[in-house]
Formats: sequence, C-alpha cells, structure tokens
Amino acid sequence: MGNKATKHLDPLEGRYVQMDDTDWVDFPPALCVGPIRWKLLNVSPEMGAWTAIFDCPAETSFNPHIHIGPGEYFLTKGKMEVRGGSGEGGSTAIAPGYGYEPCNARHDKTYFPEDSEFYMTFLGPLNFIDEAGNTIGLVTWQDAQGAWEAS
Amino acid sequence: MGNKATKHLDPLEGRYVQMDDTDWVDFPPALCVGPIRWKLLNVSPEMGAWTAIFDCPAETSFNPHIHIGPGEYFLTKGKMEVRGGSGEGGSTAIAPGYGYEPCNARHDKTYFPEDSEFYMTFLGPLNFIDEAGNTIGLVTWQDAQGAWEAS
Amino acid sequence: MGNKATKHLDPLEGRYVQMDDTDWVDFPPALCVGPIRWKLLNVSPEMGAWTAIFDCPAETSFNPHIHIGPGEYFLTKGKMEVRGGSGEGGSTAIAPGYGYEPCNARHDKTYFPEDSEFYMTFLGPLNFIDEAGNTIGLVTWQDAQGAWEAS
Amino acid sequence: MGNKATKHLDPLEGRYVQMDDTDWVDFPPALCVGPIRWKLLNVSPEMGAWTAIFDCPAETSFNPHIHIGPGEYFLTKGKMEVRGGSGEGGSTAIAPGYGYEPCNARHDKTYFPEDSEFYMTFLGPLNFIDEAGNTIGLVTWQDAQGAWEAS
Repeated sequence: MGNKATKHLDPLEGRYVQMDDTDWVDFPPALCVGPIRWKLLNVSPEMGAWTAIFDCPAETSFNPHIHIGPGEYFLTKGKMEVRGGSGEGGSTAIAPGYGYEPCNARHDKTYFPEDSEFYMTFLGPLNFIDEAGNTIGLVTWQDAQGAWEAS
Repeated sequence: MGNKATKHLDPLEGRYVQMDDTDWVDFPPALCVGPIRWKLLNVSPEMGAWTAIFDCPAETSFNPHIHIGPGEYFLTKGKMEVRGGSGEGGSTAIAPGYGYEPCNARHDKTYFPEDSEFYMTFLGPLNFIDEAGNTIGLVTWQDAQGAWEAS
Repeated sequence: MGNKATKHLDPLEGRYVQMDDTDWVDFPPALCVGPIRWKLLNVSPEMGAWTAIFDCPAETSFNPHIHIGPGEYFLTKGKMEVRGGSGEGGSTAIAPGYGYEPCNARHDKTYFPEDSEFYMTFLGPLNFIDEAGNTIGLVTWQDAQGAWEAS
Repeated sequence: MGNKATKHLDPLEGRYVQMDDTDWVDFPPALCVGPIRWKLLNVSPEMGAWTAIFDCPAETSFNPHIHIGPGEYFLTKGKMEVRGGSGEGGSTAIAPGYGYEPCNARHDKTYFPEDSEFYMTFLGPLNFIDEAGNTIGLVTWQDAQGAWEAS
C-alpha cells in the first residue's frame, strides 16, 4: 500500500518548423489524383492530431475520404471545391478562406480547379473510402508520419 | 465588407444519465464473443468522443480492435485481460483498476475470465480489424449511437 | 534545403493503476470544505487532461469552480448535488449516475449530503473562483500532479 | 426502467469564413501593446477550442500569457519572437514558419519586430498573467467570441 502508481509526466516542449527549409514531397498517389505535394508539420501522438500543408496544382483532387475527427483548413492560395463545390450542393473555398470540417464529414471529392495551397490541422485520421463507403485505408497520424518519413 | 461570418455558438448544456434506470442491451454480436451488454452514456459529436459501461460475463471477449484515439477505463468488477493478459506480455486489470490505452493501441483480444464490468471514455472510434490488420468495421461515436438506439 | 524538420514521435505506452494499491490522500484543503480525499489516476500532458477518483464523506463540498474544458463523472456511491442540487435549479446525481459537465460549466457549490465517491475525467483545468467570478487558483493537470506528488 | 436517457445528438455542420470579406478589428488593448488586430474564425464550444488570425504591425506585442492547452501557429508574414526570441533563449519564427506551443507553455513576451501576420488554432484558453504568474484574465473561447462580437 501507499505507492503512487501514477507516473510523473513532464510538459511537452515547443516545436518549430521553418517551412521554406523543408522540401515539398509527393503526397501518396494512392490517395489523390494528380501531383499533389505536401509537408508534414506536426504530429501529436497523444490526441492523434496532425498538421500539414498541401500544394495542389490545377486539376488535382483528393480521393473520397471521411474526416474521423474535426479538421480546420486555411486556404492560402487558389480554390478548393469541397463535396462537389458550391455548384453541386457542396462549397467552394476561395483564398483566403477558412473552413471547419466537422467530425465524420464525408468528402467524396475535393477538387482544385486552379493552383492552390492550404494548411490544415486534423484531429484523428482520414478514412479513405470506396464508393460504397467501405474503408480502403485509414490514415492516422502514425501513417501520415510514416508516409512523410518514407518520402 | 465588414460582416462577421463567424456564427455565434452557445455553450453546451450539462447531461445526466441515471444509470440504473437504463436497461442493459446486447453489444453488437459481430464485435464480441459471448453475451456482452452495454449502456451508452454519452456522445460528444464535436470531438468524436463517447462513453459507455460494459457488462462482460465470464469467458466473453471483444474482437480485435485498435483504439483510434486514447481511451480510459475504470474496471469496477472482475478481471480484464488486455493484449493476452499479463501471462502473455499484455496486462491483466483487476477491479478496482484504472487503465489508459493510448491512441493507436491494438487489442488483439480483450478477455474476461470472470464476471466483469467496466466504464470507459473513448476519444475517436474503435477500428475492428481482421488478423491482417485490415478494417472490418470502424465504430465511430455515430455508429455507437446508432447501435444503441437500434437495440 | 531538404531536411525534414518534423521530429519523429513514437506512440504512447499504456498505463495501469491498481487503484486499491494506492492510498487515498487529502485533497488540497484550500479547494474544498471537509475531509475530501483523492487518488490521481492519470495526467495527459499533450491535451492537458487528467483523471482522478474522489472520496467525499457526508457534508463535504468542493469550492466554487469552473470547468475549463468538458468533464465526465461516474458517481459510484452516494449523492452529489451540483449547482445547488435539483431542489435549487441544479441537479442531484444519485449513484450509479453519469454526468457530462460541459466546457465552462460553473459549479458554485458541489455538495455531498452523504458518503460519496466518484471517478472523473477532465479535459483542461479547474478554475477555482471567488464570488465575483475572479480566479483564485487555476488547477491544471500539472498542478493536480504537483499536489498529488506533494501529498 | 428501460428508457434510454442518452439524448440523440447530430453531427455538426461545416463552417466557412471568407476571410477577406471580414474586417480586421482591434484586439483587446488590455491584452497587447500596440495596434494588434484580429479576425475570429471559429469557436468549438464542446472542446473549448478556437481559431483566429492576427495582424501585428512592427513593434507590437502580446502581454504575458500561458497557453492552457496546445496551440499551433502558421506565421504567414514577418517575424515573431517567442519567449524573448532566439537571442534570449526563446525562439524567433520567420515566415513561413510553423510552431507548436504545448499545453502550459508560458510566453512572457511575444514580440513582432516587423509587420507580421499569423493564423493560430487554440485548444483551451489563454491565461494572461502578471509578473508573479497570477491570473489577470483567463480568455476562453467564450471570451474570445464575446470580444469579437463586441468589436
């Protein structure tokens, strides 16, 4: 009796990434159409959060996915059509634009009609799905880190 | 110019569940072996969190799954063998026991050698997997709520 | 150019506390009335979350505080009157009872009319306040850990 | 018996802010030195998170504060000296720069030596403090929203 089993834990340290000292690399081609590139900026293993910036040339798109946790984007350049774009019931972001994509938001197609760039924070994974909504690949912070380090 | 597009949002209200006024219902049999029952206590749609209590008779078990986000349990009765139990490199919780299962923890088998009960808070979904680690079913807060309401 | 500044981070390990092998200690007397005792079960430094169980003899109470982040309790024994209890517009939890206290919930008095015990998970600190609502003490996960280790 | 007390909750809807259609307003002068302006982009009442973009002319600064929860910034323009800047043991961000400020990070002075702009996501409040570390003002998502709507 009397031991205090709760292990002492220290606060985390700050992190900094000089973004223009880091090269763009190809985003995994299985998850997008066209030459999308990205930089992974942070992973938060406790919460399962991660942060990245994406370079999306005109006519590229991300494959269908569900946000398993909320995500927030800051579109710094170009245009991003979410869920078909505003012409088809979805929405079209125009830089500079901010969007909050809620937990379990389904993005059947995220399309960039012109050269675009956006920064995004994610809580939890992206669930890439087929047309029936079945999981093809669940991309967690750990998978994002693995893809980044492999590239 | 000048409009403030950020919508006003109100704080949430508190919630209360009188636990003994709520009946146990069967946990989805596709996700466990034996007559496990549960009560869903809360869902948190913004974060994707959910909370439940489980009644696990002797010799029942949960099917293999990965915690996509941290989970914390309070074992109030019995024994719970996690990852094979302490005899096989995992751990065995004995009531009253507290456990923190980190984001992306893989539980190939969670087995109850005797009548047990535990309360658990989850951030994010449970990813039920086959032996190769492929997703069979991703159980989000919304799926948990759907299963609960259907029962 | 070309360096990948994002540091590799590993997943966390699981934690376990055998609750009956840990002694109860006095909860800081500046924050409550009467001999409340507690056991700190977990701290999560990244999110700022923490988990504890509290032993609250009859007629004890917690001083006024605001939950700076959501909290969830599982009352395992006794009665807990929140915000004056159900007789005064608040609510009274009766074991076994579950409650969700939302972010920024203000608890002017949390009173235990009989011997009670509850388990609670907190995201973020407790802001102990005076009658005017000014901060007397902001109890973060780090302060909770410090108080626990000092006792 | 048999009632299901857990209330049905719906997923959240997406949100979008056209950032250049929203005017800059003054950041509360009690919290900074010089004419800092901001746009509040989002509040997340469940988690207590919020997101904003800040316009910081040369020689402005934020008053001493503690991040009560992790924060992530994307410096899009200029320079930001955190904790005294890299010349005094802190760090200096140079656009384009990304930073992760951990839960409970203390920023005694955040100074902008040139015209700067940054976007930041916050989990939990900012605790503005005096030299002794005592709370002067705890700025939660609700306070941020209140200040924004009042301006």
